[in-house]
Amino acid sequence: MTVRIAVAGASGYAGGEVLRLLLGHPEVEIGALTAGGNAGSPLISQQPHLLPLADRVLQETTVDVLRGHDVVFLALPHGHSAEVAARLGEDVLVVDCGADHRLTDADAWQRWYGGVHAGSWPYGLPELPGQRDLLRGTRRVAVPGCYPTVSSLALAPAMGLVEPEVTVVAVSGTSGAGKAPKTNLLGSEVMGSLSAYGVGGAHRHTPEIAQNLTLVAGEPVKVSFTPVLAPLPRGILATCSATLTADADQVRAAYEKAYADEPFVHLLPEGHWPTTGAVLGSNAVQLQVTVDADLNRLVVVAAVDNLTKGTAGAAVQCMNLALGLPETTGLTSVGVAP
Amino acid sequence: MTVRIAVAGASGYAGGEVLRLLLGHPEVEIGALTAGGNAGSPLISQQPHLLPLADRVLQETTVDVLRGHDVVFLALPHGHSAEVAARLGEDVLVVDCGADHRLTDADAWQRWYGGVHAGSWPYGLPELPGQRDLLRGTRRVAVPGCYPTVSSLALAPAMGLVEPEVTVVAVSGTSGAGKAPKTNLLGSEVMGSLSAYGVGGAHRHTPEIAQNLTLVAGEPVKVSFTPVLAPLPRGILATCSATLTADADQVRAAYEKAYADEPFVHLLPEGHWPTTGAVLGSNAVQLQVTVDADLNRLVVVAAVDNLTKGTAGAAVQCMNLALGLPETTGLTSVGVAP
Amino acid sequence: MTVRIAVAGASGYAGGEVLRLLLGHPEVEIGALTAGGNAGSPLISQQPHLLPLADRVLQETTVDVLRGHDVVFLALPHGHSAEVAARLGEDVLVVDCGADHRLTDADAWQRWYGGVHAGSWPYGLPELPGQRDLLRGTRRVAVPGCYPTVSSLALAPAMGLVEPEVTVVAVSGTSGAGKAPKTNLLGSEVMGSLSAYGVGGAHRHTPEIAQNLTLVAGEPVKVSFTPVLAPLPRGILATCSATLTADADQVRAAYEKAYADEPFVHLLPEGHWPTTGAVLGSNAVQLQVTVDADLNRLVVVAAVDNLTKGTAGAAVQCMNLALGLPETTGLTSVGVAP
Amino acid sequence: MTVRIAVAGASGYAGGEVLRLLLGHPEVEIGALTAGGNAGSPLISQQPHLLPLADRVLQETTVDVLRGHDVVFLALPHGHSAEVAARLGEDVLVVDCGADHRLTDADAWQRWYGGVHAGSWPYGLPELPGQRDLLRGTRRVAVPGCYPTVSSLALAPAMGLVEPEVTVVAVSGTSGAGKAPKTNLLGSEVMGSLSAYGVGGAHRHTPEIAQNLTLVAGEPVKVSFTPVLAPLPRGILATCSATLTADADQVRAAYEKAYADEPFVHLLPEGHWPTTGAVLGSNAVQLQVTVDADLNRLVVVAAVDNLTKGTAGAAVQCMNLALGLPETTGLTSVGVAP
Repeated sequence: MTVRIAVAGASGYAGGEVLRLLLGHPEVEIGALTAGGNAGSPLISQQPHLLPLADRVLQETTVDVLRGHDVVFLALPHGHSAEVAARLGEDVLVVDCGADHRLTDADAWQRWYGGVHAGSWPYGLPELPGQRDLLRGTRRVAVPGCYPTVSSLALAPAMGLVEPEVTVVAVSGTSGAGKAPKTNLLGSEVMGSLSAYGVGGAHRHTPEIAQNLTLVAGEPVKVSFTPVLAPLPRGILATCSATLTADADQVRAAYEKAYADEPFVHLLPEGHWPTTGAVLGSNAVQLQVTVDADLNRLVVVAAVDNLTKGTAGAAVQCMNLALGLPETTGLTSVGVAP
Repeated sequence: MTVRIAVAGASGYAGGEVLRLLLGHPEVEIGALTAGGNAGSPLISQQPHLLPLADRVLQETTVDVLRGHDVVFLALPHGHSAEVAARLGEDVLVVDCGADHRLTDADAWQRWYGGVHAGSWPYGLPELPGQRDLLRGTRRVAVPGCYPTVSSLALAPAMGLVEPEVTVVAVSGTSGAGKAPKTNLLGSEVMGSLSAYGVGGAHRHTPEIAQNLTLVAGEPVKVSFTPVLAPLPRGILATCSATLTADADQVRAAYEKAYADEPFVHLLPEGHWPTTGAVLGSNAVQLQVTVDADLNRLVVVAAVDNLTKGTAGAAVQCMNLALGLPETTGLTSVGVAP
Repeated sequence: MTVRIAVAGASGYAGGEVLRLLLGHPEVEIGALTAGGNAGSPLISQQPHLLPLADRVLQETTVDVLRGHDVVFLALPHGHSAEVAARLGEDVLVVDCGADHRLTDADAWQRWYGGVHAGSWPYGLPELPGQRDLLRGTRRVAVPGCYPTVSSLALAPAMGLVEPEVTVVAVSGTSGAGKAPKTNLLGSEVMGSLSAYGVGGAHRHTPEIAQNLTLVAGEPVKVSFTPVLAPLPRGILATCSATLTADADQVRAAYEKAYADEPFVHLLPEGHWPTTGAVLGSNAVQLQVTVDADLNRLVVVAAVDNLTKGTAGAAVQCMNLALGLPETTGLTSVGVAP
Repeated sequence: MTVRIAVAGASGYAGGEVLRLLLGHPEVEIGALTAGGNAGSPLISQQPHLLPLADRVLQETTVDVLRGHDVVFLALPHGHSAEVAARLGEDVLVVDCGADHRLTDADAWQRWYGGVHAGSWPYGLPELPGQRDLLRGTRRVAVPGCYPTVSSLALAPAMGLVEPEVTVVAVSGTSGAGKAPKTNLLGSEVMGSLSAYGVGGAHRHTPEIAQNLTLVAGEPVKVSFTPVLAPLPRGILATCSATLTADADQVRAAYEKAYADEPFVHLLPEGHWPTTGAVLGSNAVQLQVTVDADLNRLVVVAAVDNLTKGTAGAAVQCMNLALGLPETTGLTSVGVAP
C-alpha cells in the first residue's frame, strides 16, 4: 500500500515535522508541498534538515494543487483550514493540524478564536477514552493542540478521582509559537530567560483542555492554565494538580489501567520523573503521578515533544488509524537524547 | 566606613555571587576567602569572572581564618553553618546563605533536613511584613532560599484575600542546584530538556514558603510546590495561584500598596509580564497579578535571579540593613539583558 | 560634573546596553531616548530590564530631540549616523556605535557598505597603539565593531612577530545580529544549532580588522575571517592564528607588555583559557596565547561580551576619555557568571 | 537476517546513541548491555529515552557477558577496548567507538594517549578514499573520533589542491565530552558561555586528522586544530581553511565528484551553509566550500552530529558494511529540526 500525501504549510514547523516523519514512513509517497509567502522557493531554504526533499520547490496553497492526493495534511494558520477542507473530496483524508475543527462548542470558538465555527471533526487523541474508534476509517481529523495533548493525557485518568477544578502550568519550548519572526521569539530574547504568557485563562488552549476533561469526567471541569516559555526549541513539561477526592491508592492504579496498552503513553516506574529531553523527536508521552499528602493534592507531571506527539506525530498516528495501518507505523517511542 | 568581610564557601555559586556584588560595593574590603575541597587553589580557577581577585588563594574554612572580619558570609552546605557561627563573636555580623537558621520550627527542621535544629535567625527578606525592622542592627541573618524568596513575595500581599491553600510551580535555572558535579546537571542533560523534581511536597523549600505565608496570613497556609528545572543558568519564574475569597479589585490594590515603596520589588504595569532575563544579575523582583474569572482564581507570576535577589543580593541587602548602610548600596534593579 | 546624554536607537540591543551602563555611571543624567519604529511606545516595552527608566517614552529620532545634550550616543542602523552627526554641534560629543565612521578608506566603505563614505572618526579602541591619545578630548568617536574589537586586541601585539596573514574564526552569540525579527534568528532556529555565515571574506567586519592590524603592523595584513553563530545571547570567542616568524618566547612577552597597564584587557595566567561567560556584562577582554610547535603557528584565544566591551562598554569608555573622566568610570571587569 | 548485538558501555552517550539507532534497525536483536560503575542499575535510570529497553538491567562489562553475540559495540573509555577485543573471537564483529585502534603510528599513540599501542583496525570512515573496501566483511572496526570525522570529510577532497597545512576551528556541543560529571561541563557553566580547550595542538584528535589527510594527500599534512565548546548538547560545526594552490574552479568540482554518490555526505547547493541543527540525530554531514579571493584561501564549513555520524551512526554504518547489509540500513539523512 502506498498512499500519496500532500502537505499544505510545508515551510512551517508543523509541516516540516510532518514531512520529517513521513520520510521515515514506509507506506507513503510525498506529493505536493505548498506554502503561503514562501511559495516558489526551494523547500531546502525553509527546511534544511529535509535533505531527501532537497530538489522540491514549494507551490502555492491552492485546492487544485492539493487535489489528487490520498491524504492532505493541513498545517495552516488558524482559520484557514475549513475552506480548503470543504473543497477537497470526502474520500480524501484531511488531517488538520490547525485549530479550526477542534472545539465542539460554537460559542467557545467564537470567544477564543472569533469568526464562523467550522464545526468539529474526530479529535486526534486516540488515547482519550472513546476517541480511537472515532478515528478508525475517518476521512477528517482535528489534530489536538500541543498543550491540550499533554494536559489531557496527564489528567484524564484522574477524572472522577479529583475535584473538577484543575491547575496546569505547562513549560514549553519555543517551536510551539511558530516560525513567523517576532521580536519576543528571537534567540537573544528567549535564551537565558523564562516568561509566562496567556496567564489567567487567556490562552486559546484552555477551552480545549476543558472540553477534553469534561468529556471524560462527565461533568464540567474547570481549568486554570498557565503556559511558560523556556529556552529550548522543543518539548512541553506540564505540571498538573487537583484536589483528590479518592484514596491515594486508587490513583496510580487508574493511570496504570488507562495506559497499560498504549504504545505511546508511558507511566514511568515510581521514582522516575519525566523529562522532555527523553521524548525529543518521538511520539512518546512520559508521565508520573504522586500525591502531596499535606494537601491531599494529586500532582501529575507529563512530558511531550510539542512538534511530534504534540502535533505532527499525532497527525501521522491518526492517519495510520484512518487508513487502517498499524497505529505506530513510522513513529517511535525513542527520543533523541541527550 | 569600610567593613572588612570574609566569605566562607567562596568557590561555589552563592559565594561567587556575594563576591561579585561586593566588588561593586563602595563600603567593603574583601578579606579572607575560604573553601572546602578547593582550598589552596587560586580563586581564579574557580571564579574566572572575578578578575580583580585574580591573585587570591582560597584558604581552609576554619574559624581562625574567618575571625577578625566585621562581616562573615557563610555559603556552606546545609548543616555546616551553625557550628561555625557559634564560634564567631556576637559582634561579628554573620550572614548565612545556607538553610540552617531559616526554619523556626524544630520539628520541621528535623523532617526536612534532619539533625539538630540550630534555632532561627532574623529572616533576610526585608519586604516581608515586619522583617525589615528585625534586620536593622542584627548580627545574625538567615538568608532565605531562592524559591521561598520569589514565592513569598509573590503571594504575601494576597494573604487574607485567598483561601489558605496555594499552588506554586516555579521554573528555575540550574545554578540553584549548585556547583558540585552531578550527571543530571551536566550541560548535555539540561540543555534542550525540562524536568520536574521534588514533586508532591518533597522539596525542602516547601516548609519555608509555608512558614512565611502562615506568618503573614495569621493562619496556617498549605503550599503545593513543584520546582521545574529549565535550560538556563540563572533565574526563577514562579507561577502561583490560589482561590480568591475577595473581590478581584482588591487584589491589585493590595499588591500596589505592599510594594509601592520597595526598591527591589516591582509590580509591573498591567499588560507587562515578568521575564527572568529582565532581572538577570540584579536584585529586582518583577511581579504581575491577574484573576482567572472562570475559576475565580488569583494567578501571580514573579521573576527573580536566584543567585542575586534569591541569595547573594539578599545577603548584601541584609548586610546593609544590619550595618545601617542605605539598603540599596552595591545593588541594582537593572538586569543584564538580553 | 554631570553630563546630560541622549541615546538615539534606544530600543535596540546596543542602545539598551548603553543605557544599562549609564544607569550605573555616577556622572551622567539620562535625557532623550529616541527610536525609529518604536517611537511613541514606553521604553519598558522594549527594554524591560531598565526598570529605573520605566516611565520613559521613546521619542522620534530627530536632530531637534537630540540637541541640547552634552553627549549623544548613536545606535542606529549602518548609514544613518553621518547625517544626524553632521547636524549636531561640534561641541557635542557624538559617540557612534554604527559603522559609518570606522573605515578610513573610501573604497573599502564603498565595497563593503555602499553609498557615500562619511569619513572616519577617532577609533574607539583605546588599547590599540596610538588610539587612546586620539580619543582624549575628542568630540567624535567611531565605536569599533564587535568582531574587530576582539580580533584586533587578540592579534595586535603579535604584529611583526607573525606573517601578515591571519585566520580568525569567531564564535558569537546572537545579540550581535540585532533585534529586528528574522526567521534565522528565532530562538527555535538558533538554540541547539551552530551555523557559519559571511564565510570567505564576505563579512563587513573583515576590512575593519585588516585596517586595524595593518595600522599596527605598518604593512598590509590579510585577514581570513569566519563568524560562527552559536546558541547564547552574548559573547564572542575568537580563535586567531598566524604563522610565527619570531621566537615563541617573544610572543608571551609581547602580550604581557602590551596589556600590562590596561584596565580591561587581561592576559590570563598560563594554563587558564578565556570563556565568554567570565566576561558577561563586563568591559573585560580575556586573552590567552600559545604556539603550536608542530606548525610553528601562534594561536590566540580571546573572549569578549559583544554588547559591552564589543559595543556599549567601549562607547562609555571612550566617552570617559573624551570628557576627561577616569577611563573606567561606570564600567567593570567583573563578569556575571555563571 | 537477525544479528545479535551487545553494547559495552551502554550507560554513556556513545553507547546510548548506538542503542537508539539499533532500536530502529530492522536486522538486529539487542542482547547484553554492560556498564562499569552503573552495572546493576536499570538502563532506564541512565538512558530514560530508550523506553523499549525499560526492563533491561546493566550487567558488568566482562568478556563472558559479551561473548555469544554476533556484534559487540565497545563504547568504553580510551585504553579499555584492546584487552576486551583480544578475548572476543575473530568471528565476532567488534566495533570500537574508542580511540584504541585508530592511530596507525605507535609513536603517535604513545605521545597522545600513552601506554602500549594496540595496533590499528580498519578505519570506520567509508567516505574516505579507499576505506569502504577495507570495511566490507571486516570483523574489526575502529570508529573515528568525532572531530576527525567532520574535519577529514571537510578537507579530504581538497588534498592536492591546497598547501599541506590546514587550520581547523571546530565548535562542538557538550556531549562529545562525555557523561562523567565534571564541574566545567555543568549546565550552569556551559550555558551562556563559549570556551576553547586543547589549543595549540594539544587535543588528541589532532594526529588522527593529520593521519587521515596525510593518507589522502600522499604527503605529510600539518593540522592546526582548535576545538571550541558551545552551549548545545549535540553538533560540531568545523571551519577549515588552507591556502589554495589550484584554481578556484577546480575546488567545487573536486567536492562534487568526491561526494556525488555518498548517501550521507552532502555538498549543499551554493548559497546554503551548513547548520548542525539540520543534521541533529542524523547520519548526514553537510558541507559548503568557498574561496576567499583576497587571500586565495579555501574555506570549508561542515556540520555533523557528533554522536550520530560522529560516533554511533558511523558505528552502525560500518556494521552494515561489515555484515554485507545495505550501508544505510537503520540510518537517516534527515535531522530533527528545529
